[in-house]
Amino acid sequence: MVPRYTRPEMAAIWAPENRYGIWFEIEALAAEAMAEAGDIPAEAARAIRARGAPALAAIGPADIERIDAIERETRHDVIAFLTWLAEAIGPDSRFVHQGLTSSDVLDTCLSVQMTQAADLLLADLDAVLAALKRRAFEHRDTLTIGRSHGIHAEPTTFGLKLAGHYAEFARNRARLLAARAEVAVCAISGAVGTYAHVDPRVETYVAERLGLVPETHSTQVIPRDRHAAFFCTLGLIASAIERLATEVRHLQRSEVREAEEFFHPGQKGSSAMPHKRNPVLSENLTGLARVVRAAVTPALENVALWHERDISHSSVERVIAPDATMALDFALARLAGMMEKLTIYPDRMAANLDSLGGVVHSGEVLLALTRAGILREDAYRIVQRNAMATWEGLGQPGARSFRDNLLADAEVAGRVDAATIDAALDPAFHRRQVGAIFARVFGAEDPAAGGAAHGGAG
Amino acid sequence: MVPRYTRPEMAAIWAPENRYGIWFEIEALAAEAMAEAGDIPAEAARAIRARGAPALAAIGPADIERIDAIERETRHDVIAFLTWLAEAIGPDSRFVHQGLTSSDVLDTCLSVQMTQAADLLLADLDAVLAALKRRAFEHRDTLTIGRSHGIHAEPTTFGLKLAGHYAEFARNRARLLAARAEVAVCAISGAVGTYAHVDPRVETYVAERLGLVPETHSTQVIPRDRHAAFFCTLGLIASAIERLATEVRHLQRSEVREAEEFFHPGQKGSSAMPHKRNPVLSENLTGLARVVRAAVTPALENVALWHERDISHSSVERVIAPDATMALDFALARLAGMMEKLTIYPDRMAANLDSLGGVVHSGEVLLALTRAGILREDAYRIVQRNAMATWEGLGQPGARSFRDNLLADAEVAGRVDAATIDAALDPAFHRRQVGAIFARVFGAEDPAAGGAAHGGAG
Amino acid sequence: MVPRYTRPEMAAIWAPENRYGIWFEIEALAAEAMAEAGDIPAEAARAIRARGAPALAAIGPADIERIDAIERETRHDVIAFLTWLAEAIGPDSRFVHQGLTSSDVLDTCLSVQMTQAADLLLADLDAVLAALKRRAFEHRDTLTIGRSHGIHAEPTTFGLKLAGHYAEFARNRARLLAARAEVAVCAISGAVGTYAHVDPRVETYVAERLGLVPETHSTQVIPRDRHAAFFCTLGLIASAIERLATEVRHLQRSEVREAEEFFHPGQKGSSAMPHKRNPVLSENLTGLARVVRAAVTPALENVALWHERDISHSSVERVIAPDATMALDFALARLAGMMEKLTIYPDRMAANLDSLGGVVHSGEVLLALTRAGILREDAYRIVQRNAMATWEGLGQPGARSFRDNLLADAEVAGRVDAATIDAALDPAFHRRQVGAIFARVFGAEDPAAGGAAHGGAG
Amino acid sequence: MVPRYTRPEMAAIWAPENRYGIWFEIEALAAEAMAEAGDIPAEAARAIRARGAPALAAIGPADIERIDAIERETRHDVIAFLTWLAEAIGPDSRFVHQGLTSSDVLDTCLSVQMTQAADLLLADLDAVLAALKRRAFEHRDTLTIGRSHGIHAEPTTFGLKLAGHYAEFARNRARLLAARAEVAVCAISGAVGTYAHVDPRVETYVAERLGLVPETHSTQVIPRDRHAAFFCTLGLIASAIERLATEVRHLQRSEVREAEEFFHPGQKGSSAMPHKRNPVLSENLTGLARVVRAAVTPALENVALWHERDISHSSVERVIAPDATMALDFALARLAGMMEKLTIYPDRMAANLDSLGGVVHSGEVLLALTRAGILREDAYRIVQRNAMATWEGLGQPGARSFRDNLLADAEVAGRVDAATIDAALDPAFHRRQVGAIFARVFGAEDPAAGGAAHGGAG
Repeated sequence: MVPRYTRPEMAAIWAPENRYGIWFEIEALAAEAMAEAGDIPAEAARAIRARGAPALAAIGPADIERIDAIERETRHDVIAFLTWLAEAIGPDSRFVHQGLTSSDVLDTCLSVQMTQAADLLLADLDAVLAALKRRAFEHRDTLTIGRSHGIHAEPTTFGLKLAGHYAEFARNRARLLAARAEVAVCAISGAVGTYAHVDPRVETYVAERLGLVPETHSTQVIPRDRHAAFFCTLGLIASAIERLATEVRHLQRSEVREAEEFFHPGQKGSSAMPHKRNPVLSENLTGLARVVRAAVTPALENVALWHERDISHSSVERVIAPDATMALDFALARLAGMMEKLTIYPDRMAANLDSLGGVVHSGEVLLALTRAGILREDAYRIVQRNAMATWEGLGQPGARSFRDNLLADAEVAGRVDAATIDAALDPAFHRRQVGAIFARVFGAEDPAAGGAAHGGAG
Repeated sequence: MVPRYTRPEMAAIWAPENRYGIWFEIEALAAEAMAEAGDIPAEAARAIRARGAPALAAIGPADIERIDAIERETRHDVIAFLTWLAEAIGPDSRFVHQGLTSSDVLDTCLSVQMTQAADLLLADLDAVLAALKRRAFEHRDTLTIGRSHGIHAEPTTFGLKLAGHYAEFARNRARLLAARAEVAVCAISGAVGTYAHVDPRVETYVAERLGLVPETHSTQVIPRDRHAAFFCTLGLIASAIERLATEVRHLQRSEVREAEEFFHPGQKGSSAMPHKRNPVLSENLTGLARVVRAAVTPALENVALWHERDISHSSVERVIAPDATMALDFALARLAGMMEKLTIYPDRMAANLDSLGGVVHSGEVLLALTRAGILREDAYRIVQRNAMATWEGLGQPGARSFRDNLLADAEVAGRVDAATIDAALDPAFHRRQVGAIFARVFGAEDPAAGGAAHGGAG
Repeated sequence: MVPRYTRPEMAAIWAPENRYGIWFEIEALAAEAMAEAGDIPAEAARAIRARGAPALAAIGPADIERIDAIERETRHDVIAFLTWLAEAIGPDSRFVHQGLTSSDVLDTCLSVQMTQAADLLLADLDAVLAALKRRAFEHRDTLTIGRSHGIHAEPTTFGLKLAGHYAEFARNRARLLAARAEVAVCAISGAVGTYAHVDPRVETYVAERLGLVPETHSTQVIPRDRHAAFFCTLGLIASAIERLATEVRHLQRSEVREAEEFFHPGQKGSSAMPHKRNPVLSENLTGLARVVRAAVTPALENVALWHERDISHSSVERVIAPDATMALDFALARLAGMMEKLTIYPDRMAANLDSLGGVVHSGEVLLALTRAGILREDAYRIVQRNAMATWEGLGQPGARSFRDNLLADAEVAGRVDAATIDAALDPAFHRRQVGAIFARVFGAEDPAAGGAAHGGAG
Repeated sequence: MVPRYTRPEMAAIWAPENRYGIWFEIEALAAEAMAEAGDIPAEAARAIRARGAPALAAIGPADIERIDAIERETRHDVIAFLTWLAEAIGPDSRFVHQGLTSSDVLDTCLSVQMTQAADLLLADLDAVLAALKRRAFEHRDTLTIGRSHGIHAEPTTFGLKLAGHYAEFARNRARLLAARAEVAVCAISGAVGTYAHVDPRVETYVAERLGLVPETHSTQVIPRDRHAAFFCTLGLIASAIERLATEVRHLQRSEVREAEEFFHPGQKGSSAMPHKRNPVLSENLTGLARVVRAAVTPALENVALWHERDISHSSVERVIAPDATMALDFALARLAGMMEKLTIYPDRMAANLDSLGGVVHSGEVLLALTRAGILREDAYRIVQRNAMATWEGLGQPGARSFRDNLLADAEVAGRVDAATIDAALDPAFHRRQVGAIFARVFGAEDPAAGGAAHGGAG
């Protein structure tokens, strides 16, 4: 991933230092397990750790260049590493990697890296969830117009909008936990997964100490449906980011102005137009969502490896594993910050809510007319007629509000009185169920979500 | 989906008759719940069901054309249906759909259809699993060469190959169950999800009776991350099909001939080449996998709807929901049949296993040399040298087997004896762990997977 | 494609009647060419056409069912057709298909169908271009605010907006012509493309009469990069549709209301909210764009066939070739109609243009200050300060316009006079280059695009 | 792109030094054009170049860090660069960027970078084409079995196989040239593309000197369908790489062994199995093809920007523009080298060709029987019967060849003589048209492709 969209913690997971450290840990643990089983001398296992661990702890650019040089000769990355490691360990190095195949090391390492990445992303999600929850409660009762098709529909509250996004991110958190479990597997099963040269107990031993579980049945590799499921989940999270970013972009439109990304002192929106304050963060997030999602198809194409494995998945994963996790880590962090600092304009929400002369209450008026005994089809016609007349009069001199149009309608007058109409036009009752929905979304664990406070919200 | 890849049961789920039946059920249940809450007369709810149910039970092409005609006028599908339904129900029809919005009906109906489709697909998966399990046990001990990179690696058994695919399909079954739960939600929450005109208890009542749970927080719609997660899962299953289909295609290659799709009497492989028997089913499945996967990206693009909803997802779902489930249903059924009837050639497996002069045992020989005290690096060099010599002699007059080359090698002779080499060249021990792996894959529920039988497999 | 998104002309291209008709034509032409070369008797070629043509002309459901029945037996579609055809032709049928392989017929037929589909789509594009051009000239000088990032930027004209979309569709027309040429190829080259049993002149003869050119080098099939290029082009057109549809959706937003899809008398926007008029056509087009684009990835995955061909592409093409062309045909026709009838509100455009107190002219004011000798950095700061003050005052009592704020600014007063500011705030000059741009977009072929008319637009 | 798949020349195109150099060139050229038009003083334009050019020529890490620091303050990359540039240029810097908007610089720069990248890729394609052509002519007449569905079909030559790939890469070269022209456009048209503050002649002047053409109609940006078309083309090239890589992987399979990637002295195929020589380059290319193709969908999603532009495309392009071009550059170079050095085994080709007892000639035998007056349907049955018998006898003691089976068949004997059968079994005639096909593929420009030489190939 380009540095612009990379944060150091996630980058460290995919750095060679971390990778070699995990490789060594797998080899050292495997040696311990083999020693325990009597397959190699116990002193050898101890020597491997005693001499290898400091070498890995001190690994630096010169070592990495040395390993790269050996790889240029052998054209094999694991053999290059083992050769370098042998120099540090000495004669006992012949007990390293016994009965293992490269993929045992590579695939188990990738599992560790992916779980590490998942843990960072889970923390990122928690920050997004915290920001959404705080702002949702802050604006639990702030009335705003709900929009379907971009058209004013009926009132809702800004807190409810955010609660919906919170619920989606909460679902994604659960999905990521499941995806983490999918890839938290260890395979030390040899060349074609038959444990021909390695005891299955080695796998169990290594898995346990790395926080993994043994793969049910590996071939030479851990099957790639697991990784594909992981990247699909990243794609779902990216799409949730896009949905929230799109909402913010809409709210910041010049004609809407209900919310705005925080504008830093010193920031410049446009080199040519000094008046501009653009929703650049949310637009950026929209693009990053596309970038993360781009990993889904190649990950699915990686599943159908030939026979017990081919290595076509490897170049793909060298690119998409760091890139997709880095871009998503960056995007979630940016999103959390953006939502934390989002400037929210309740006055503009109120103004927009009232801007269509009251037609947004047509649904409740329709029900009121139906309750008054007018056939639904007739009621629909009456309400549509008066809503359209109100709409078309918007901004015209002498225009009438929806209320006045209704009361002047011959089919309404005499059948429904003004008080009934006024009750139907009162936005207050749209808040009636906010408390109940909040309780479902945020659960009982939040004190603010309960009891009296919500009664007052009705 | 084109008729060629459509099976009637799945087609029925997406037929208008089923859709209208579900719409009616939602409306009738909602009316009952409202009657229970006292919002509409109990007799009205009873009349809706009493008069509506027979109309739906008898719905035919003429009714569907009538609804289509109303839609051409109103440009609104739910209103068209309600108008048709009103004709059947009479005056009580004014109590139908009260306080609901179209999406309440549409989205809950889609949930029902998707769970119905999931149930069919789960049954399809069960058939695939059953076929794989039967064939896996049948060939649990049939030795065959394992291949990495398309190159002979080490022996495995054909049963183990199938067990790996079984394990992947079992994971996909679990994923599909989870995906089914994701979409098994009901939303009856009104125009922007505030329950402004409808009691939340209506939603609970309808959900319960349809086998769904209420959506935590709907806007006007059930959020589309749920559907995207569902289609991602279909993409994963499709990729598993592709992996198995690719295996069969490889096995049927003229040079390999280890397995073959059943060739029907009367079947013609090629109009120009009468000798041809082609793996057309597995190739077809490879293509169908691409077709099913094609639903993943549009489903992810559907997530970021504007505000409380836009309707851009609708046309996508009208296409991909039936198409992806139909294609997958067809593909799974075809796969199950293909695996059930796959002709398997153990003789060819044995012949191929032996065809490289024994070099496929180089890994065990390497370990034998290491155990005999030769440094790993030296052992690797020795083994590689003799393997390459064997390889290059293949088919040449006077060519020596890997065994003979090894025993003639100056660095081997005197350090490792013939018995040790012969032990390393014995394919039998590659079966040692088959029983243990089968137990992990197929579990204890299968009697054949347990105890003594497996001891004998070692 | 589902019937809802299918138009009859495009459906006819993909109907079995058309396919069998083309198959016959290929066989009949091939027979003529072979007769000409002396490979088969001339009377046989004449008999094939004489007896086959009427059979194809009269082909009906019973014939198609008969062919399907034979295919169920032989599991081969071309053999099934040839068997049916032989019944019509009689003994001379043994000269049909001589030296050909099925793919010669299938692939050449697909080429014909794709060029037929391309021709329909080119006509669809012409209708879109015509609608865009007419509306562009109609509103060539209608001032409207240009928006970047959804934020008011500087004035433009509505005609210019449409001209930009016209230019994109014109590029897509050129791309589709190129893509049509990519697939307008014929292959009659035998089982592996060596012309072993068929003279290359047969291919030349058939190609010429079908309006195709011979494939440079076919294997058993026409290489699939050609088809992939075709579907990529459909994806580009779909994306152009999405861009224009997104523009309309934005313009129809309740807060913007600058344009609106035509609302039919009798149309209902929402079952629950009678006031709604939703941009459902453009939302639908947004979704259809996703559907069409979904063909791109499988088409690219189809390229890497094994050796001289495998048949994995076939199931993909049976689905995406009709589906993508049908959906695109429907979408383009819908788009043309929508743009033809789009209701455009110049008054709302003017109102929105003025709604931000004049800050949208900050760019020209910045230049004016720079021209007056103020350093660019200072000028930026001054203009930004006054624009922000104006913005924040919007809707407040006693708020000052951008003009008044500027004139009251100590750093402006005395250095730039009111006349200079007023000149910078005049929207008229944003139309200066409209004529020149129109000439580039629409070319000289349009009289309205030339000379005096445009001079007046300055 | 990760360093492993990055080559320095392509990396340099996307490095900040190159980007800032192009930005400066655009600003300097624009100043010259404005000076020519009298909009700014001529000395200012001269000073901009005189002082700016050395600063850019000497730009180093410290400068780039300085620009980054300013961007962290202003949150705007172009303003950051202009601020840095102003320090170098002094007071005349106020004439830099006059009337331009950032996108004028950014988008025109991206056009320059993409054409530079295209030029490198065109050279890469030339290297692939040269390698394919050389090997194709080397093996023009080397008989090998053609395979459809992975099953032996009929003979072809290895040169013909390569010629088919050559033809596909030649098509891709033409497509890349067209795609290069698509993006070789310049936009200097101001904030919303109206040239409000900048003379269109500035754009023309800059375009000409940068080897670009003015965009027909830009908004604030160059429309993204152009870039999408470019990335689609990269996806097509990637798919061609995958097709050829898949062929090599198949040919190197242990059972096939007709070709092999060059195996370097010192190379190790497997850490556990010293006998392995794996097609790792072609597997790697298969994966890289997926990586390059992953850019297609986000590029298409980038097209539908909002109104006159939003900036969602920017983060996508920052990633996919360097990544896709770097990965493709690396892949093409690797492919050219791999094909240059591919080890080809004509003996194995001959052995495989003969391995099925002659049944691969069933097509010609079918024609021979038909020519002898047997009805096609009967002939097919006879040939299929004998081919299947031969196939099933393969490797069995006492098995008969296809020839012997045919001659022993009662329906053949007496109607077709041995000489006719033998003629049909002669592979020589499959080379008859090789010369003609080579002439089509490689054209007249190659002397070896012409006249007499090809006559001899028959």
